[in-house]
Amino acid sequence: MSGAAFIAVDWGTTNRRAYLIEGGEVVATERDDMGILSVPPGGFPAAVAGLRERHGGLPMLLAGMVGSNRGWHDAGYVLAPASLADLAARLVSPEEGVAIVPGVCRDGDERQDVMRGEEVQLLGAVAAGLAPGDALLCQPGTHAKWALMKDGALADFITAMTGEMFALLKGHALIGSEMTGEVEADADFRKGVEASADRDLLSALFGVRAAAVLGRRAPGAAAAYVSGLLIGSDCRARITLPGQQVHLLADGLLARLYSAAIAIAGGQAVVVDSHASFVAGITRIWDIKA
Amino acid sequence: MSGAAFIAVDWGTTNRRAYLIEGGEVVATERDDMGILSVPPGGFPAAVAGLRERHGGLPMLLAGMVGSNRGWHDAGYVLAPASLADLAARLVSPEEGVAIVPGVCRDGDERQDVMRGEEVQLLGAVAAGLAPGDALLCQPGTHAKWALMKDGALADFITAMTGEMFALLKGHALIGSEMTGEVEADADFRKGVEASADRDLLSALFGVRAAAVLGRRAPGAAAAYVSGLLIGSDCRARITLPGQQVHLLADGLLARLYSAAIAIAGGQAVVVDSHASFVAGITRIWDIKA
Repeated sequence: MSGAAFIAVDWGTTNRRAYLIEGGEVVATERDDMGILSVPPGGFPAAVAGLRERHGGLPMLLAGMVGSNRGWHDAGYVLAPASLADLAARLVSPEEGVAIVPGVCRDGDERQDVMRGEEVQLLGAVAAGLAPGDALLCQPGTHAKWALMKDGALADFITAMTGEMFALLKGHALIGSEMTGEVEADADFRKGVEASADRDLLSALFGVRAAAVLGRRAPGAAAAYVSGLLIGSDCRARITLPGQQVHLLADGLLARLYSAAIAIAGGQAVVVDSHASFVAGITRIWDIKA
Repeated sequence: MSGAAFIAVDWGTTNRRAYLIEGGEVVATERDDMGILSVPPGGFPAAVAGLRERHGGLPMLLAGMVGSNRGWHDAGYVLAPASLADLAARLVSPEEGVAIVPGVCRDGDERQDVMRGEEVQLLGAVAAGLAPGDALLCQPGTHAKWALMKDGALADFITAMTGEMFALLKGHALIGSEMTGEVEADADFRKGVEASADRDLLSALFGVRAAAVLGRRAPGAAAAYVSGLLIGSDCRARITLPGQQVHLLADGLLARLYSAAIAIAGGQAVVVDSHASFVAGITRIWDIKA
């Protein structure tokens, strides 16, 4: 690949990561907390102009929540199954020299789902050869995305509010006051993943309260246990075949937690570099568009 | 039954219901919002004295959260299986003429659970002949209790944070803003109960957001749908035999919702009067103690 230089931006709700890409290579990168929630009303043109000035006024390709109805400009959704070419064909340009990648949706009477930003990483992972063209990919987080790739396209996907549920429980539930201690892929986390086999989350969560009342769980162990319950529930709902490979677009703690849970649920995690995946995906879209 | 007159109080977290019982019959009743959370520190003796003065200074038997470590006096827990006689044998008396019924716990390495207040209703339902001595009973609410009765005793139970989860989602989740509209045992509620068959709550809940983004659910329908998802998850985890009878200690909306969900989950609900059950249970404890 030897496309023209451009600025790629992964612009999410709370963070923004920009890459200066020349000839398919990242030559500069910057990250800040200027997510869409921190941009004042009407402030996107100035925010974009600032980025472009810092990087030689190059054209820009944006992905993520910047293209939502709460971002700069609603870039809509492409219906799954979707390829990078499908995304490139549906770019939206809010101003000269700037384009936004659409999201991907799944529609149908029985189930609907949406993603915005993850599609570039998921398809990019396959484009970069970091994951096979037929694979189950997972991008954990506030809203964990699980994508089924077929022939290199994003064929279907499902979202679980795993991370959001943890924050809800910790912040506002009766058991929130028990959820102290660090979350790590330790014995307490694993106990939670084991307990999630019952597929009975509502009672397992109350059990955290009962264990505390009866002095059955060490103080500081509940946060990891609840994390295990939730991530375990998420993984068990997705892993249906023994030994199923899951390509995991994550690093750090989330990669450790999901790798452990996937293994306990009978699968096998392969950790994939999500930043390299994004760069590969956005560069491919840029080249197709050119 | 022809026991001496006494005042029975079902004293919960947010409400209090008092019954003047003479010769096994309720001759007066009062209800107010003086739950334990509204009693000031050190205020229980005065609150109790007020009640006794209004009812001829009779002795009192209290049940519910008043016997918790956040209430007046911690009355502890009796280990399941537990009978009314077991509860009567473990009354705690914080002052002359006043006794508090203990809660019931389930302990063991694999699972812990606690209840406080519900045990009087559950055992009372059987004592009054409103439910058989071998039965599955359900008392829905913030923390829904499901009790397995054997030979008239409370043999085992499990708690689900069904009602609390609904309040958490409505008050604090991303989908909370979609959860408008009344909850009723209508078509939207039933769709939620049907969807709960997947046993994949974390993704079903995110689907509420996706359906709203894609305009796939009528405004005002999501609250009933989420209620159906949660109550459906609760009932499906408990109903393991086709046609299983569930004696439901509830009235009004909760009785309608759980009856509908139990039927969809393959069971059969029998609605039981929870106030009559409480009176029967607390009167039996009083008579045993006398």
